[in-house]
Amino acid sequence: MTEDLDPDFAPVAKRIRDSVGRQGFMIHLGAELCELARGSCTLAVKRRPELLQQHGFFHGGVTAFLVDNATTIAAATSRGQPALTAEYKLNLLSPATGERLICRARVIKPGRQVAVVAADVFCVTDGVEKHTATALASIAMLDEKAPAKMPSPA
Amino acid sequence: MTEDLDPDFAPVAKRIRDSVGRQGFMIHLGAELCELARGSCTLAVKRRPELLQQHGFFHGGVTAFLVDNATTIAAATSRGQPALTAEYKLNLLSPATGERLICRARVIKPGRQVAVVAADVFCVTDGVEKHTATALASIAMLDEKAPAKMPSPA
Amino acid sequence: MTEDLDPDFAPVAKRIRDSVGRQGFMIHLGAELCELARGSCTLAVKRRPELLQQHGFFHGGVTAFLVDNATTIAAATSRGQPALTAEYKLNLLSPATGERLICRARVIKPGRQVAVVAADVFCVTDGVEKHTATALASIAMLDEKAPAKMPSPA
Amino acid sequence: MTEDLDPDFAPVAKRIRDSVGRQGFMIHLGAELCELARGSCTLAVKRRPELLQQHGFFHGGVTAFLVDNATTIAAATSRGQPALTAEYKLNLLSPATGERLICRARVIKPGRQVAVVAADVFCVTDGVEKHTATALASIAMLDEKAPAKMPSPA
Repeated sequence: MTEDLDPDFAPVAKRIRDSVGRQGFMIHLGAELCELARGSCTLAVKRRPELLQQHGFFHGGVTAFLVDNATTIAAATSRGQPALTAEYKLNLLSPATGERLICRARVIKPGRQVAVVAADVFCVTDGVEKHTATALASIAMLDEKAPAKMPSPA
Repeated sequence: MTEDLDPDFAPVAKRIRDSVGRQGFMIHLGAELCELARGSCTLAVKRRPELLQQHGFFHGGVTAFLVDNATTIAAATSRGQPALTAEYKLNLLSPATGERLICRARVIKPGRQVAVVAADVFCVTDGVEKHTATALASIAMLDEKAPAKMPSPA
Repeated sequence: MTEDLDPDFAPVAKRIRDSVGRQGFMIHLGAELCELARGSCTLAVKRRPELLQQHGFFHGGVTAFLVDNATTIAAATSRGQPALTAEYKLNLLSPATGERLICRARVIKPGRQVAVVAADVFCVTDGVEKHTATALASIAMLDEKAPAKMPSPA
Repeated sequence: MTEDLDPDFAPVAKRIRDSVGRQGFMIHLGAELCELARGSCTLAVKRRPELLQQHGFFHGGVTAFLVDNATTIAAATSRGQPALTAEYKLNLLSPATGERLICRARVIKPGRQVAVVAADVFCVTDGVEKHTATALASIAMLDEKAPAKMPSPA
């Protein structure tokens, strides 16, 4: 894993994993933090009836949850400072079918105040990925010493 | 209730309520369809540990779920035709504290192909509402006779 | 005018007007700063052939320019500190016809780091306004003492 | 050029070039249609004082104009049917310095009703490109036989 190869990143990765592990909503959705590296993050969920909408596709809200969380976590990795979602735009491209939903986020532009992060969501059927959503997020980077006044996954 | 006062709207409202009632994710989050009228929709969730993030605020993914669903439902009311989220932008304004999270969506511009819908999310503490998020969505309006190829709450 | 009634705001307003007056693009488009108050700003342009697209409507780029500038100026009024556009989303609602295009921006949520600003654009025909576009922007608020490293209208 | 190699695309490209050539705003800004291919479009402007803001950077409105036009043109190429900007989100990443501003748009997801198009904007100094903005757009695809009721660059 990436965090094992970079001794400076290991404590940042640990802090993020601990923090994300305390999110009730993450557990309620059965989401998994698959990959964590400087400037990127991958989250995924498995198909379960309680994550679907009435036609049997993953609910758009599940896609949004993955985007919200993965973009903020990716931003938090880049400097190790706390981060919170300021805003994002999400385009749904196709029905989210299949057995798994994966969101890959990557920092496009780090920043002391605001980081810009892109995310793409893929649904997996029989091992084949289909692009199901794309997003662009602005993440507010908090002062490490300041008390967290805003929700933050990291 | 609004749907009782408008005999043309009653069957549309019934179809939407039935459809939303079959969303596994809606049930999993304990969300409630509070109000439904021509061009608007209100959804809400009550505070439960499984909807929170690690600091005890409602998770941003819950806010996004409410926005995704309420904007698409609001669009579906305006013409009674099936609707699906094409895209939205969501700005988080403040931590979502309190005992309840309410999302009110209203159609700004109906359309045969695309409807534009705004949504505001409020968190409620001791009966006092605080503005916690604002969103702007484009909803694709489907041909009623066409088979639904995309996820749609209505 | 609002800036005359608020002695604390007058120097802020003056600084903003001076700064906007030095924008070559503002002059090139013949844009006018109509109103300036704490937390809001109105800009407008008159119909001229060079602001149109091939069907005789105002070009979408003119609408975007008004939104970009008006939202950043509105954010700059709220604390008097330099501001720059971080991002915005713009929905075009109808063709921008008529003799004048007006953009009204208002701060929804001031912030030390990021302000959230909404804007609505109207086109005017025979004195009647039609809603032609709506936008939601995040504006980065700069430290007054820091050197401006980013474009900023104020 | 790409349009010369694809006999089916040549008439589409000609129609788009004619249409864009009639945009007063395009001429007023001195913008150039550099490349046109199935699913993509590149536009550029050269540095001129009237395209700048008060600090000598390209004005954000110029970036927005390039994004608005390039995304809609890219969508129009994919099926040859008229297209109009429904909405876009634009993140400004760094000051737009240098002698030239280039916007490259590419269709991410074609669609009969709505196409999703991404765009990146680069500023060029001494031949070196810097990423200055990124955008994500939804473009409404019009019925070819329907009368154009909305502004459209193609």
